[in-house]
Amino acid sequence: WTEAGVDFDVIVVAAPLAVSGRILAQLAVLKPKGLVFDIGSLKSPLMDGLKELQSAGCRVTSLHPMYGPDTRLLSGRHLIFCDVGDAQATAAAKELFAATMVEQLDMGLEDHDRLIAYVLGLSHALNIAFFTALAESGEAAPRLAQMSSTTFDSQLLVSAAVAKDNPHLYFEIQNLNKFGLGPLDALCEAAARIRETVAGGDEEAFVELMKKGREYLALRG
Amino acid sequence: WTEAGVDFDVIVVAAPLAVSGRILAQLAVLKPKGLVFDIGSLKSPLMDGLKELQSAGCRVTSLHPMYGPDTRLLSGRHLIFCDVGDAQATAAAKELFAATMVEQLDMGLEDHDRLIAYVLGLSHALNIAFFTALAESGEAAPRLAQMSSTTFDSQLLVSAAVAKDNPHLYFEIQNLNKFGLGPLDALCEAAARIRETVAGGDEEAFVELMKKGREYLALRG
Repeated sequence: WTEAGVDFDVIVVAAPLAVSGRILAQLAVLKPKGLVFDIGSLKSPLMDGLKELQSAGCRVTSLHPMYGPDTRLLSGRHLIFCDVGDAQATAAAKELFAATMVEQLDMGLEDHDRLIAYVLGLSHALNIAFFTALAESGEAAPRLAQMSSTTFDSQLLVSAAVAKDNPHLYFEIQNLNKFGLGPLDALCEAAARIRETVAGGDEEAFVELMKKGREYLALRG
Repeated sequence: WTEAGVDFDVIVVAAPLAVSGRILAQLAVLKPKGLVFDIGSLKSPLMDGLKELQSAGCRVTSLHPMYGPDTRLLSGRHLIFCDVGDAQATAAAKELFAATMVEQLDMGLEDHDRLIAYVLGLSHALNIAFFTALAESGEAAPRLAQMSSTTFDSQLLVSAAVAKDNPHLYFEIQNLNKFGLGPLDALCEAAARIRETVAGGDEEAFVELMKKGREYLALRG
């Protein structure tokens, strides 16, 4: 990319996370005049590069589209904007999407990875755990693949989409997030607790878990 | 129900599992002439009652609809038939659904609960683990409820349906299944393994888990 120069109205850094950080740092020394933003799934690996660009006087902000490249209509989709300290640059990036139906969401650069560890990290890990448990169910495995129930089918559809995506990107999303282990520990802990309530025949505790979940999901409206 | 008599063409036992077993045993002494079947989510708690009915010379079989009472069209839905030793009774029950689009699936009475422990038990536990981890994410919890990504949204839809269902039935499905702990252990084990690959930075093992999942899900076609 270095041969293309930096004389553009907008420069979008869309590369694997580890590489994106380096490109941002390199751009900081080239000092482009146009608007610069990344679209990385995590922000902590990009923080230094973003700050360098800002210190160098560049117009920089940071975006995270919560949808994949297959998405056609942006209606109902979320696009996160993390201001890096240049409100005008963020406003200019938002303006680029003004003609779409995408829902624009502001998020602090520091908050982003902690929340994304759940939104992406936990969702991915959950589905990987699901198909791993199925695939390793021994002689039941091939028969299970042919079975159907309302919940099982819906779950398999989510899992199939996860399984088809880029495993290296998914690893980066888990591994490069310094908040990544929190949700994974929470998942292990929740699974173990369910196992204990069932093994111990503790119906009250099981019903309580489901009741708390229902109350929580009601927040979503 | 005992006041209604047993003089019917078809008697369907549709009660909580613990109660269904007792009703089947009671029917075995009343010896109805019509076709008798249960629609229980598990078969081990009903096994004795079903066998008693059969020994008493009654026409008995065992069904499990893999869909809830909200279902309207049976197209693409599965209905499991577990023969109890009376092939004519099973054929008669199948005939009752001949006019529908439901997919009829034969399953050994002994196999049923081992497979259902995954199809229902694992799917339910997975979603309970998901919303429990979210609900207990502390200060992030209310913000997470407002967030959106393709996978997260799909997963929340599955979880919302699970959270809305009957927690006592869900507990029975876990707790009364003698094969119930197998899938829960598999879930705990898979979650722990994902955590270890991420904590250890083992990209190769992580990618391998996703690859195996993709291969497994391809069996479903």
